[in-house]
Amino acid sequence: MTDVDEAVRAAAGAAAAARTATDAERATWLRAMADRLDAAVDELVALADEETGLGDARLRGEVARTTGQLRMFARVVEEGSYLEATIDHADPSATPPRPDLRRILRPLGPVAVFAASNFPFAFSVAGGDTASALAVGCPVVVKAHPGHPRLSRRTAELVAEALSAAGAPDGVFGLVDGFDAGLALVDHPAVTAVAFTGSLAGGRALHDRAAARPAPIPFFGELGSVNPVVVTAEADADRGADLAAGLAGSFQLGVGQFCTKPGLVFLPEGSALEAALAPLVGADAPRMLTPSIADGFAAGSERVRGVPGVEVVAGGRAAPTVAATDLATLAAHREQLLAEVFGPFTLLVRYGSRAELAAALADLEGSLTATLHAGEGESVDDVLPLLEEVAGRVLFAGWPTGVAVTWSQHHGGPWPATTSQHTSVGATAVRRFLRPIVYQDAPEAALPPALRDANPLGIPRRVDGMLQTA
Amino acid sequence: MTDVDEAVRAAAGAAAAARTATDAERATWLRAMADRLDAAVDELVALADEETGLGDARLRGEVARTTGQLRMFARVVEEGSYLEATIDHADPSATPPRPDLRRILRPLGPVAVFAASNFPFAFSVAGGDTASALAVGCPVVVKAHPGHPRLSRRTAELVAEALSAAGAPDGVFGLVDGFDAGLALVDHPAVTAVAFTGSLAGGRALHDRAAARPAPIPFFGELGSVNPVVVTAEADADRGADLAAGLAGSFQLGVGQFCTKPGLVFLPEGSALEAALAPLVGADAPRMLTPSIADGFAAGSERVRGVPGVEVVAGGRAAPTVAATDLATLAAHREQLLAEVFGPFTLLVRYGSRAELAAALADLEGSLTATLHAGEGESVDDVLPLLEEVAGRVLFAGWPTGVAVTWSQHHGGPWPATTSQHTSVGATAVRRFLRPIVYQDAPEAALPPALRDANPLGIPRRVDGMLQTA
Repeated sequence: MTDVDEAVRAAAGAAAAARTATDAERATWLRAMADRLDAAVDELVALADEETGLGDARLRGEVARTTGQLRMFARVVEEGSYLEATIDHADPSATPPRPDLRRILRPLGPVAVFAASNFPFAFSVAGGDTASALAVGCPVVVKAHPGHPRLSRRTAELVAEALSAAGAPDGVFGLVDGFDAGLALVDHPAVTAVAFTGSLAGGRALHDRAAARPAPIPFFGELGSVNPVVVTAEADADRGADLAAGLAGSFQLGVGQFCTKPGLVFLPEGSALEAALAPLVGADAPRMLTPSIADGFAAGSERVRGVPGVEVVAGGRAAPTVAATDLATLAAHREQLLAEVFGPFTLLVRYGSRAELAAALADLEGSLTATLHAGEGESVDDVLPLLEEVAGRVLFAGWPTGVAVTWSQHHGGPWPATTSQHTSVGATAVRRFLRPIVYQDAPEAALPPALRDANPLGIPRRVDGMLQTA
Repeated sequence: MTDVDEAVRAAAGAAAAARTATDAERATWLRAMADRLDAAVDELVALADEETGLGDARLRGEVARTTGQLRMFARVVEEGSYLEATIDHADPSATPPRPDLRRILRPLGPVAVFAASNFPFAFSVAGGDTASALAVGCPVVVKAHPGHPRLSRRTAELVAEALSAAGAPDGVFGLVDGFDAGLALVDHPAVTAVAFTGSLAGGRALHDRAAARPAPIPFFGELGSVNPVVVTAEADADRGADLAAGLAGSFQLGVGQFCTKPGLVFLPEGSALEAALAPLVGADAPRMLTPSIADGFAAGSERVRGVPGVEVVAGGRAAPTVAATDLATLAAHREQLLAEVFGPFTLLVRYGSRAELAAALADLEGSLTATLHAGEGESVDDVLPLLEEVAGRVLFAGWPTGVAVTWSQHHGGPWPATTSQHTSVGATAVRRFLRPIVYQDAPEAALPPALRDANPLGIPRRVDGMLQTA
C-alpha cells in the first residue's frame, strides 16, 4: 500500500504515456492482466474464500468473468468505435465558411476506483472500473475494500507485474487503503473522475465530496437497488411453483449479496408462488462478507419486519428471510420498506387489481433491474412502461442476478441505483473516462492517426455525416 | 410565463408522449420550430436588437445558425446512430449461458434549460440545449435570461405554436422567468437534468444545488473560459501584422461577449503582433448586453489592470482593452489574471523561451478552446500536447470565435469551461439527455422497433459485436 499523494502523482506521471499508447498496446496490457490473474486462479480463489466465504465455485466463476471482462475491453478499444472519430471536411461555400473539424475522444486522466465488497474480483481491484479506465488510457488508483485486504494486495501485485511486463508505464496502476485514503483520493487535484460501487450512504457522501471540490469531478457511482419483480396472476397460475424456486434461488444466491438481488416482489393475493416459497428458504444464518454487512442485514431485516402490516413468510433474524405485506402498508411505510436490505431478504407485496399494482409501480425509485413474469402472450402494456421508467435492465421471465458481460449490457438505473448514465458493465463503461477534443484546421501531422484522412487504424468513423464501418 | 410547478408538471405529463413519438415525428417538430422562427426573423431580430444591441447582421446570422441547428438535430435523430442500438443474441453454449440482451438509449424526462445572455437565439429559448433535449424526447422548461425578456417570450410563443401545429404533446415546452423560478426548477423532483450556459459563479451555485438534491441530477454547464492563444516567434515574424488584425477582430467581435473570445495571448517578447495592435482597438465604450454585464466588464478589466506588472497596451476603462504582462507576473497573480473578463478585453503575456512558455501552459485551467499560431512546418511538439490537455477544441492558424454547428463540433473543456464531458453543440449534445436500457429475453412485441431483428427503422446498429450501417 502506498501513500495517496504518492500514488496519484505516479498516476499523473503515467498519464501522458497511457494516453499516447496505441489502442493495440493498451489491449495488450489488459490481456496480460487477464492472463496473470487466470494463471493465479487457485491462489486467488483460496485467498478470496478465506476473506469472503463466497465459496470455490462462485469465486472461480467470478475470476473467469473478471478476466473475460478485461479481454472484452481489449476488444472494445481495438475495434475503435469508442473513439467516435468524426470528420467534417471544410466547406468554404457555407455561410459562414466552415473550417475543417475533426473530433475524437481522449482520456480524462487519473481515475479513482472504489472497490466493492461483494464481488472481490469483478467489482474490485481488477474489475470493470479499472479495466474500462485503463483500456482508454486513464491511470487508475484503486481504494481497496476492507472486506478482502489480502486478496486486494495480492491482486494488485499481479496486476502491477502484468502491466509492467507488458510495457505499461510505471504508476499507471496503484492501490491505496483505508477510509481516510479514500477521502484524500476524491479530494486530490490530479484525480479527474471517481468510480464507485457500494452503499447508498457511502456513495452519497463521496458523490457530494466530488461535487464540492474546487474543481468538481464526475462521480460514477452504483449505490443501491431493490430490483422489483412483477408476477402477473396468469404467470402465477401457470407456473407458481417454478417461480418460487427461481425466486428462492435468486434472492439467496451469493448470500443475497448481489446488487441485482430481487428485493421486492409484487405478486397476486393468494399466489401459488408465495404458498410454495417457505420450504425453499435456508434455515441457517449464513456467513456474510463482513461483520458490518451482517449487522446491516440484521438491522435492515428487523426494520422491515417491525413495520405493522408486515408478516414473516419464512426465516427471520440472521437467516434468509421472506416477508410479505400489501400495497396499503407499502404506501404508508415507503421509507422503511423500500430501502435496500443487503443480504438474503426479499419482501413480497400482494396486490389486488392490476390498476392498484400499476399505481404502486409508478411510485418506485430507480433500480438496476426490473423483472416481469407474465403469461404466454398476456398483454403487459399497463406495467411494462412503468418498469422501463425505473430500471436500466428489464428482464422477461428471468431473474436479475447474473449480469452477462457483453457489448449491450448495462448495469445502472435512475437514482439511487446509479448517479450517472453509464456504468462499469458493458462496452460504454469506457465512455465515462473520455472527453471530446476537436481539431480545427489541423495539419495532417498534428492529428492523431484516428483522424487522418487515410484512416490508418482502419476504425469506424463518421465522415461528413456518414457513418463508415472499418 | 407560467408557474414553475405548473410548467414542470405539464412537462412531466408530456414525457410519455414525447418519448414514444418516433424519431421522424420529433424531427418534424424541430423543423416546424425552425420554419416558424425563420418566418418571423424580421420581428425577432428587431426585438433582439432592441434588447441586446448586437446589431442586425449578427442577429440575422444567429437566427440562421439557430434554425440550422434545429434542423441538424432533426437529421441526427433521423439517422438513428444516437440510439446506440446494440443487440447480443443469446448464447446457450456460453459459461454461464448468455441471455438475449438488447440495449437502446431512452430519454431521461423533463429537462431544465437556463438560457444565456450573449446568444439570444443560439443559446437561449430555442438554442442547442432545447433542440437537443426535444430531439430525443425530453420535454423542456426554459428559464428565460433577464437580458432579453420580450424576445424570450415571443420566441417561446412561436416555439409553442410550432410544436402544437406539428402535433407535439401539450406541455412538452414551457418558459419560466425570474431568479427564484430558476432555483425552483433545479429543485423540482420531476426535473431530470439541467443544462446551463452562463457565468462561473451562477453555474457553480446551480451545479452545487443540483448535486445536493435528495435525488441528485446531472448538471450540464458551460461556465467560463479564457481561450488561450499561443503565437510562436516564427509565426510572429512571418505575419505579425495579420495576426494583430485577426486578434483585434476576434476579441472585439460581438463586443467581446463570446464564450470563445481569446482572452489570453502568449506571444514572444517584442512581438510584431503587439506592436501592430493598438490602432486596431476601438476607442469608444460599446453598448453591452446588460448593465450588470457592463459593470462586470469594467470591474474585471480594472482587476487585471490593477495588478503590478500589468500595463495597458490600448484602451482601458469601459472601452475595448488590451493589457500586457510577463510570465512572472502571471505566475504571481494567477487568480486575478486568469479569471475570465467577459467583454472586449484580452491579456497579452510576453514569453522569453519556449521552455518558459511551456511551463506557463502546463499551469492553465480548462478552456473551451486553445489556439496555436506557428510557422509553416514548425515543430510544435512542445506546446501542442499542453493545449490539448486544457481545451475541448484546438485551432490551428485561426481564431476561436465562431463555432460551426456540425456532427463533429464540441463546445466544452475541463473545468471551469464545462462541468461535463458533452455540451450543447455538436451531435453528441443529445447524449446528455439519454440513459441506457437493456431488454433481457424480451419477446419481439415488447421491444422498441429499433431493437427488433428485422431493423424496421433501418438504423445503424451493433449486432453480436459487429457495427452495421443502415
